Amino acid sequence: MGRRPGEFDLIARHFAPLAGAERVLALGLTDDAAILKQAVGQDLVVTADALVAGVHFLPDDPADLVARKALRVNLSDLAAKGARPLAYLVCLSLPASIDEPWIAAFAAGLGADQAEFGIAMAGGDTTSTPGPLTIAITAIGEVRTGEMRRRAGAQLGDEVWVSGSIGDAALGLRALRGDGMPGLAPAARAFLVDRYRIPRPRLALGLELPGDGIAAMDVSDGLVQDLGHILRLAGCGAVLNLPEIPLSPAASAVIRADAAALDQALSGGDDYELLLVAPPELGAAIQEAGMRATTPVRRIGVLVEGDGVVLRAADGAMRRLARGGWTHF
Amino acid sequence: MGRRPGEFDLIARHFAPLAGAERVLALGLTDDAAILKQAVGQDLVVTADALVAGVHFLPDDPADLVARKALRVNLSDLAAKGARPLAYLVCLSLPASIDEPWIAAFAAGLGADQAEFGIAMAGGDTTSTPGPLTIAITAIGEVRTGEMRRRAGAQLGDEVWVSGSIGDAALGLRALRGDGMPGLAPAARAFLVDRYRIPRPRLALGLELPGDGIAAMDVSDGLVQDLGHILRLAGCGAVLNLPEIPLSPAASAVIRADAAALDQALSGGDDYELLLVAPPELGAAIQEAGMRATTPVRRIGVLVEGDGVVLRAADGAMRRLARGGWTHF
Repeated sequence: MGRRPGEFDLIARHFAPLAGAERVLALGLTDDAAILKQAVGQDLVVTADALVAGVHFLPDDPADLVARKALRVNLSDLAAKGARPLAYLVCLSLPASIDEPWIAAFAAGLGADQAEFGIAMAGGDTTSTPGPLTIAITAIGEVRTGEMRRRAGAQLGDEVWVSGSIGDAALGLRALRGDGMPGLAPAARAFLVDRYRIPRPRLALGLELPGDGIAAMDVSDGLVQDLGHILRLAGCGAVLNLPEIPLSPAASAVIRADAAALDQALSGGDDYELLLVAPPELGAAIQEAGMRATTPVRRIGVLVEGDGVVLRAADGAMRRLARGGWTHF
Repeated sequence: MGRRPGEFDLIARHFAPLAGAERVLALGLTDDAAILKQAVGQDLVVTADALVAGVHFLPDDPADLVARKALRVNLSDLAAKGARPLAYLVCLSLPASIDEPWIAAFAAGLGADQAEFGIAMAGGDTTSTPGPLTIAITAIGEVRTGEMRRRAGAQLGDEVWVSGSIGDAALGLRALRGDGMPGLAPAARAFLVDRYRIPRPRLALGLELPGDGIAAMDVSDGLVQDLGHILRLAGCGAVLNLPEIPLSPAASAVIRADAAALDQALSGGDDYELLLVAPPELGAAIQEAGMRATTPVRRIGVLVEGDGVVLRAADGAMRRLARGGWTHF
């Protein structure tokens, strides 16, 4: 722990009530470490993601939403891996401008998500910083031994699936930055902003999917870039059918008014949907998992020889993402 | 993962070789998460600490030493808890001034310590930041089920023990800041600076100590402040015998020339020694553990009724630390 004045009081007042007290035994955050009781037949799954004010969220975003986003981007990784969330640790580097009400709201956001996702705080650290607010979270989940779903293993002919809808968050960020989107209704704008601020980790879908045969990751850096990671591991390319890529009504309205917004939607990031690549014979199981999880899933393309992602429009025209932007060919 | 240009290349080049490949299975850092295989009869012990340039280390400290310090402050927590290190995750927020040679040296420092301490990288994140370099590490260790050594449980009449020597790091930081220490020989200065830059987590001692009956923590924020945490949990005070507090020859030389340096030594932090509080009947076992671990341990005081820490000088004079500094009484 660092030396920020009042640090121990802040922890006792706002974070100690979040400390795990059962299987995750964090001792009221009054010790150097927490205990995680192991479960027979389970592997642990660990992941970490850091968020920096001005880089990953806007400095005036509400504190409770910042907390929930920081936690949820990690839970989204666990969802992709088919893991059930168990515990998390949070390192907070706080500039002097952060006051106690902000911290109280931040902790309340964590508390709300702990209740929603059944996860407990296992510890962390608070330090001062002369720089922007920085939040580093490590999340720990578990899966049945040997069943963590990986990015690797996709093959030629496998189909590409995605959950939910793509591009909402990128367009929500654009709205927050004041980049005008002509004709965007207030309710549609609010929907897109909410999608930027509050990821919905697809944990239920992650748990319902078959444990074997699917390559998976979450979409955090944009659909096209993230699919590229799976493709490189597979040594393949992919063709995505543009009309099949799921867009929300709000995103569709933006794209109808401004065709360039489509590229933002497909490469902008912060979707936190699940990207799945699986052989055709698993298609029915994926659709059934989506129904059980009440999470829409959509088949959007197929793995082909080559590399990179090619988009096929409704009229059959193909184009490809080059470094730094889209090019036609 | 964030969007720093070249991020994936940097990870592949410098961090992927550090990824665990056996019990900690980090898949070359090409996946969203790593797998931790569980061991029968063990609890996991988790802890996190963040370091900020200019707050916890000096911006021009060598990159490999910054990496090792960031890892070791976490290993020191595991040592206090009696845990064997297993895995760690590192979130790096990098300002634009950090170049690839710096990152290469940072990774080399982590690699050296992985070899020394038998720990594997399980993942992490790199992001850009407009602020100072920030390093947040989560460390995971294990202990036999139910045997994590805690801060709580000390009682009236228990004895206070400390490993190694106290105050070197605080005086080393003073030397680095150019605060003149008259008569300090170059070799002594180098020793103190090294103690500031490279903590020695007392893992061997932590593992050799009896699994039950000892309250323990590591000394990171200064001997007096940290003992205060154990005392509050115990509802006791402590009397420490000043002549018994272990000082290195270098620290002794500084204090002989400047009596005020004693208070810096006792309250300055960054010692990363183990602080143990145990009933007198465990004294022999603690000394034997120190011998087996080849780590000096010293009995420096006793728990008494009251609260806070009182220092007893060689002539019997007593004084107490007040908020913000020492006062006599």
